[in-house]
Amino acid sequence: MNVVELADQIAAGNRRALARAVTLVESTRADHRAEAADLLERLRGLNRQSLRIGLSGTPGVGKSTFIEAFGMQLIAAGLTVAVLAVDPSSARSGGSILGDKTRMDRLSREKGAFIRPSPSSAALGGVARRTREAISLCEAANFDVVLIETVGVGQSETMVAQMCDLFVLLLAPAGGDELQGVKRGIMEMADLILINKADGELKSTATRTVADYAGALRLLRKRPQDPEDFPKAMAVSATEGRGLTQAWAEMQALAQWRRDEGHWDHSRAAQAAHWFDYEVREGLLAQLRDDPDLRAAMAERSRDVAEGTATPSAAAREILQRLGVGAPPD
Amino acid sequence: MNVVELADQIAAGNRRALARAVTLVESTRADHRAEAADLLERLRGLNRQSLRIGLSGTPGVGKSTFIEAFGMQLIAAGLTVAVLAVDPSSARSGGSILGDKTRMDRLSREKGAFIRPSPSSAALGGVARRTREAISLCEAANFDVVLIETVGVGQSETMVAQMCDLFVLLLAPAGGDELQGVKRGIMEMADLILINKADGELKSTATRTVADYAGALRLLRKRPQDPEDFPKAMAVSATEGRGLTQAWAEMQALAQWRRDEGHWDHSRAAQAAHWFDYEVREGLLAQLRDDPDLRAAMAERSRDVAEGTATPSAAAREILQRLGVGAPPD
Repeated sequence: MNVVELADQIAAGNRRALARAVTLVESTRADHRAEAADLLERLRGLNRQSLRIGLSGTPGVGKSTFIEAFGMQLIAAGLTVAVLAVDPSSARSGGSILGDKTRMDRLSREKGAFIRPSPSSAALGGVARRTREAISLCEAANFDVVLIETVGVGQSETMVAQMCDLFVLLLAPAGGDELQGVKRGIMEMADLILINKADGELKSTATRTVADYAGALRLLRKRPQDPEDFPKAMAVSATEGRGLTQAWAEMQALAQWRRDEGHWDHSRAAQAAHWFDYEVREGLLAQLRDDPDLRAAMAERSRDVAEGTATPSAAAREILQRLGVGAPPD
Repeated sequence: MNVVELADQIAAGNRRALARAVTLVESTRADHRAEAADLLERLRGLNRQSLRIGLSGTPGVGKSTFIEAFGMQLIAAGLTVAVLAVDPSSARSGGSILGDKTRMDRLSREKGAFIRPSPSSAALGGVARRTREAISLCEAANFDVVLIETVGVGQSETMVAQMCDLFVLLLAPAGGDELQGVKRGIMEMADLILINKADGELKSTATRTVADYAGALRLLRKRPQDPEDFPKAMAVSATEGRGLTQAWAEMQALAQWRRDEGHWDHSRAAQAAHWFDYEVREGLLAQLRDDPDLRAAMAERSRDVAEGTATPSAAAREILQRLGVGAPPD
């Protein structure tokens, strides 16, 4: 299938074509990269937008169970949903291991659902580009909702938040001390905090945890992209399916408010500009990594600098001159 | 005075030549940069090493009073001491405002002391390079101790810690809750935590605070560059001059241990390699900032991307091609 056909099939909502296209954008081969760029450019014109929801939560919080239950509810409401996983620490090879699909057994069998495991890649930069392109493909395939799941570690949350319209934090019921464990920076990105496992023995703890987080959220600086009662915290039970309808209603209300107030378009534009800037910077720095001769020269000068036979600045100037860059006046 | 004369004067310990050289390395003029590089290369051969002590602490903790008292004690012990301030948030122009010298009234009148206020610069990268070069100049001028003072905000501590042999954190007596306010990352860089103001009414609070921090330090992961009883916390009173002798003894003991065990050389080599790498990366990225045509092209493509008439990746590839960089296969 050539790129034109692939684009047509994706636009028609063909799941197998979509899966193939995601594999294409995940490839590092130069000819695949060129095809991927061509494909994305063709699909850009469709101008389709899904509701992109970023979902983060530490391992053990019940993320897969939540996504399965939440996804099934969207399907029942007649919507289509794509689930993309982002885990830069993952060593799994893209799509070849059953992991994510068996984690979401019912959802993966639904016609209206598309589930894609995390691509394996050491570099966060590569993961960012692939995930953004996979999101664009899902939008072109006309999915109503794209859920981007990330593990609650490192910089992956910040990255995912920069690609999403809404950012949801899934947490477990916890005592006051453990509340400190959620980094302030992550809290500040959240639009909705869902305390999962609000069932059985943990129900009352969950209620208290919701109150704790609601209090913590009130202490954060007000963001322009939030209506009066957001960000908010609420309890859900993925296993019992409780609170999911209300959570979805909150997400829709927030998304609608942001659309009406112009924050949606503004945020999408700012995100696109951010990723453009990011790719230019990454591309410049990639030279240092990708050119074997340059890598060797860097290693040699680094040794000289460590041994004190050259100053860091003088050695850096030499490498920069080699790259055709004059010394910056800073 | 030409560069050769300036180098000779600095090597001979001439304070006015040193001050002039620091001004030279702070300049952004291309001809000054070339002269500065020449000067530093000439002085490199002297191979002189001061004890570089990084000192951080939030405003109000009594840093100036501490540096004055501590510096006077070093002077009384027959040592020479240079004080460099790093404050990237400072809008003061380099050296022209009395600030730092009047803050350290007695020390600034000592022959064995050299005090230099923070250069003004918006970019942390520029501050890093200037500070490293100012340190090198002070070492060439044969100072026994170089104190690098930084304010307890932003990334300046990490930067200063990457230039120093020892990192000292100066804190005020505080209750248990406030202890949380010191970021874990900053704690992890500290070799010595000094609780200042251990005098008058705050004396007993200071003792408790020392115990609190000593406990917190024990919870941190052991670093290879620390002997058994480091990092440690202790109380000092800069106004009463108490604990300063012991603090200095601790610093000397730690420095000697690190020299004996090879950590000193290893750390200096790693720091130099780090700054080499940093300057290469900064130099590459500086192209985007310094070339007006490129800046205009970036702004134009950024607008296209924000308006959705180009994908971030395609627009980035265009800019990278202009810079002679092929698309990275990532």
